[in-house]
Parts: sequence; structure tokens; C-alpha cells
Amino acid sequence: MQEQSALATHDPGSLVVGVDVGGTKIAAGVVDAQGQVHGRVQLPTTASQPEETLNTIIAAITSAIQTAGVSFAAIRGVGLGIPGKVDVEQGISLLAVNLGWRDVSVKSHLETALGLPCNVENDVNAAAMGEYLYGVGQGTSNLVYLILGTGVAARIMIAGQIYRGSNGLAGEIGHAQFAVDGPQCRCGGKGCLEALAAGPALAQRAQETVRSGAPSSLRAVLAQHPKLTAEQVCEAARQGDQLARQIITAAGQHVAHAIYLLALTYDPQVIVLGGGLAQVEILMETIQTDVARKAEQSPIFREIYHKQLVRLTGLKQDAGILGAAALIAAHDRCRQ
Amino acid sequence: MQEQSALATHDPGSLVVGVDVGGTKIAAGVVDAQGQVHGRVQLPTTASQPEETLNTIIAAITSAIQTAGVSFAAIRGVGLGIPGKVDVEQGISLLAVNLGWRDVSVKSHLETALGLPCNVENDVNAAAMGEYLYGVGQGTSNLVYLILGTGVAARIMIAGQIYRGSNGLAGEIGHAQFAVDGPQCRCGGKGCLEALAAGPALAQRAQETVRSGAPSSLRAVLAQHPKLTAEQVCEAARQGDQLARQIITAAGQHVAHAIYLLALTYDPQVIVLGGGLAQVEILMETIQTDVARKAEQSPIFREIYHKQLVRLTGLKQDAGILGAAALIAAHDRCRQ
Repeated sequence: MQEQSALATHDPGSLVVGVDVGGTKIAAGVVDAQGQVHGRVQLPTTASQPEETLNTIIAAITSAIQTAGVSFAAIRGVGLGIPGKVDVEQGISLLAVNLGWRDVSVKSHLETALGLPCNVENDVNAAAMGEYLYGVGQGTSNLVYLILGTGVAARIMIAGQIYRGSNGLAGEIGHAQFAVDGPQCRCGGKGCLEALAAGPALAQRAQETVRSGAPSSLRAVLAQHPKLTAEQVCEAARQGDQLARQIITAAGQHVAHAIYLLALTYDPQVIVLGGGLAQVEILMETIQTDVARKAEQSPIFREIYHKQLVRLTGLKQDAGILGAAALIAAHDRCRQ
Repeated sequence: MQEQSALATHDPGSLVVGVDVGGTKIAAGVVDAQGQVHGRVQLPTTASQPEETLNTIIAAITSAIQTAGVSFAAIRGVGLGIPGKVDVEQGISLLAVNLGWRDVSVKSHLETALGLPCNVENDVNAAAMGEYLYGVGQGTSNLVYLILGTGVAARIMIAGQIYRGSNGLAGEIGHAQFAVDGPQCRCGGKGCLEALAAGPALAQRAQETVRSGAPSSLRAVLAQHPKLTAEQVCEAARQGDQLARQIITAAGQHVAHAIYLLALTYDPQVIVLGGGLAQVEILMETIQTDVARKAEQSPIFREIYHKQLVRLTGLKQDAGILGAAALIAAHDRCRQ
């Protein structure tokens, strides 16, 4: 998939390439100083050998630059968002299960091949930087980015930089226990926020409740599939299924509580919600209603709360590319 | 009260004065680069007119410099920790109820009178900086300072600076709701951590329970006083009173939960406990035991947890002076 877009009068020095490296696809694009994406390219990920995937990444970058109609000389650098654990200093992917990567020297490999400076970062961290630089976090001095998807995690931007904490675990509120003796979490804990509100949790809750005999349109879906998915639960809720709505509402209340705790600890200007679940309207409505209710009840939280405190990501389908581009663009801004 | 101490071979350029401005006393001292306090001076606070209190502060500073046996020329600056709301940029005490202050231009008044640079800061923020520069936070790049006293609040140091948040409310976990329909908090909320674990909360819980007929040595104390104090409850617990111990243990569990949340959000190298209640052994033991238990149950928290994660303040009686001194000393380090 390639897309041609006009890149006429932009200052060549302000162009960067953002690459979103995922388990199924690699998306690349040339990003200008205004956060516009040019020459979007998407290639399937070949998860056989790391070298092969790296070559696909190089092909995507090269193709994006060509499609955007600019020269290599006009590109200041390449940012790459990669799932899993990343050594940012060395530019090494320490572990990316979906890519089958362990200790892959992404930065040095790409810099040698392309002759361009490359920055590598965990994809969720990159998304937080993207929101800060190009999204609804523009102009803020601090923000919390809360991803709601197959996992739940917060990332924190302070004064233009990701705050990582001592062990890279700052913002791991997804693994705070929100329900004593609650459902098992994939981390090994019990009743973690993630085990209550992430996609797989919604699916499992719905499945268990349907199997226990509760009436729901999901019964028919489950009859045709071995397992329910979060997408199916969200679709049923959209269609008005009461059980699905209840499950999503309960998850939203847990997320609202997390937002309240993040607000009281970080006092951010904005909390941006990203990830697949953030696009589910019923969930967002529950979160907004519940956060507003908490502000009514708590005078201190009320001082932090405002109607634009909790916002949906503004980056949508380009979030991955823009987040990755921010790794170079933000770095340059800090050096100025 | 004055104290003479040797100040022999210190580099004069490394000396600062720290002033702890409290509702009942003003403590000042000359602090060297090693965090040693010289020429401690303590004067009673005269809470009549701000001008009078400012003159007492000037007298305390002058006396501390004289007592330490150094010249004004050897002092690089004066730091002042003041309770309540402070405009750090302008050096104005916006509101200090215990001092009877509102919009007092502390910095400009003192700089004119002394001819020395003065920095002003909220006293709890100053204490956090003191821990970072001179206390158990030395050598860390981030720490959380949790004060347990008449209030409960966290202050956060990141890369040598206080992280304040957008409204100066970062770390206000004392006003997170830890018990639905819990006791009324002075903030206007219900069931806040502070309403469950601060000094006045312990006193009130003990008083209510004794009045409801529970057996306790505090019954005799309450017969002689109109109200119980946190000190009386802590003393009874030390003497083995079961009710007092139960109340303090319950408070400790709430504090442990706050530490767990602060750890999962900030991932700090150390969480330093200060304030009067931090000196209560039974409380500290409960906190340490409960935090360790949480680490056993949660694999993610276990990655953050270590045996020195939660530490008692190392500054003790000099905390106020050293915290205030850090306002100048830390500032100078940042400029280097």
C-alpha cells in the first residue's frame, strides 16, 4: 500500500521518517515539522529471521522517502517504534516476542545501511512522544498517555522527555491490584487493572458470564467461535447487548479510577487515551462520566480536573508513524 | 538556644544558610557541602505581624552565621522552608495559616535586608530536596518523599528537581479515596488516605472506638483530656495497648498501599518516609511488612521493590534546616 501526497514547500531539514514496527505490518512515512505524514508505506512483517525483517524495514523507509518525493539528503533521521523491551541508548531490541527478536542491534544495522541517524524506542513510549509532539498533548509541559488495548499501561512525558523511572517501570498502573482476589493477570498477579479492563479481560469476562447462563446476543457468537474476542464484545455492546454493556461499563469504572490515581500522583495537564479500546465509545463515555463524578466528590481532584483532562488520542491511524517520528523530532528540539 | 560547632577548613564558597520557618519556632543553621549543620539557632515565632516574624528570621540568620564563626561574605545564599502555599519564582508566601501570612514578599524583603540571594519553598518540598541532597536520597536520580504527620502527602524529586505537576498538586495521594464511604477528610472528601492514616485520623479513630466501649488504656487518658492526640495513641501502642496497636496497624496498611501505588506510578529508587508518624516504630514495621508482602504477590511490583526501597528519613531534627539549605545548594549544583 503506497500513498502519494504533496510535499511542496517544506523545509527539507525538518523532515524525519517514522517507522511503526509491528508483528504483522511495518508502516513508514515521511513526517514534516507540522506533523503531516507523506509517502505512507505499509509492508507485511516477515517474522522468520531478524535480518529479513530489518531488510523489510529498510525497504519501507526507502520506499516512503521515494513516495514522498524527497531525497535522502533531506531526511534528518529515522525513528522506530518497536514492541517489547528496548535499550534506547544502544538502540537494541532486547526482546520483541511478536517479531521473534532478542538482542537485535536495530540502530547500528540501519545506520550502516541507510547512512542516517536512527533512534529506537518501545512503541508505547513512542506513541506518548507522538501525542506530546503532534497530538492532543501539543503545547503541554507534561502528559500521561494511557494505552488501553491488549494491555493497560501509562507512559509519562515531563518537560518533553519520557519519564521512565528507575527500572523503566514508571506508569505500570496496569499491574496495580484494583480487586482483591480478582481475576488472574498475565503478569502473575491477581486483580490487576489489566486483568479487569484490558481487551482479553473483557472477552474472558463475557465468555464466562455467557457460559454461566446469562442472556446475551454473544451466546450465538460463542456458538460459532471457540473463544470470544474483545472486538466481538464491543460490537455486541454497540448493538445494545446489555451484558456486553455492563462488562464494558465495569471496565470503564476501573480505568476511571486509574485516571484519578494518575491525576493525583502526576497532576498532568492532559491524560491521553490510546489503544484499540479507547476507540470504543461506550467505554470512553463511562470513563468521562466516572472521572467527572470523582471530581465532584473530591475537592483536591477537582483542582486538577478540567473538561479536557481526559482526551482521546488525536493521531488515530498515523499514531505509530508519528510516535516514531517524534523520536528524532523531539530529540532535535531538545538540542536547540 | 545556640550551639557552637567547629567550622574549620571548609571552603567558604560552599556554605549556605537553611531556615526552617514554623508556626512556633524559627530554626536556622549554616550548612557546609558535606551537609553538616553549624551554629544552630532557634528563636520563637512571633505570629503578630509578618514584618515582626521577618525580623526574627533575619535575627536567626545573622545569629547562626555569627555562631558558626563565619563571615557574611562566606555565605552563598539563604534557603527558607515555609509552610503553606509559596510562589517559588517570586519568593512570596501566598498563604501560611500558622504564621498568619498572606502574600508576604519574603525573598525581596530578606534579600534587601541581608544582601544575600534567598530562595523560598514550601517546607515539605524543601524536606524532599533535603533528603535528595543530604539524606537517604543522596546519589539517587529520583525519589519519593512521603510525609506522615498531621497531613499525608508525597513530594517527588526527578533529576535533582521537584516535580510539581500542572497545578502544584503532584503527589497528592493523601487525598486519593482509599475507603468508599470512609471518614470525612478535612479536604472535603471522604475516605481519603489522610482521613485514614494521618495523626488526627489516628486520634479520632481511637477516641471514637474508646467511647463506643472498646477496652483500652486510652480510656483513662480520655477521662483526663477532652480529646485524644496522635501522640497519646502512639504512646499507648508502644506500651502494648491492643486497640492503639490495631488502629496504627490499619493506618500502616493504608500507607503501604499508597507506597505500592507510588512505586507503580513513579518507579522511584527510594521512598523516604518523614514527618512525626514516621518515627513511630509499630507504624514503620507494619508498612515494611505490608510492602514486602505486596512485592511477594505482585511480580511487577517485585521488579521495583528492594529491601531499601522504603526508608526512614535520615535527617531527623535537622531536616528543616537541611531541606531549606538544599534550596540554595541544589540550585547551585544544577547551574554547574
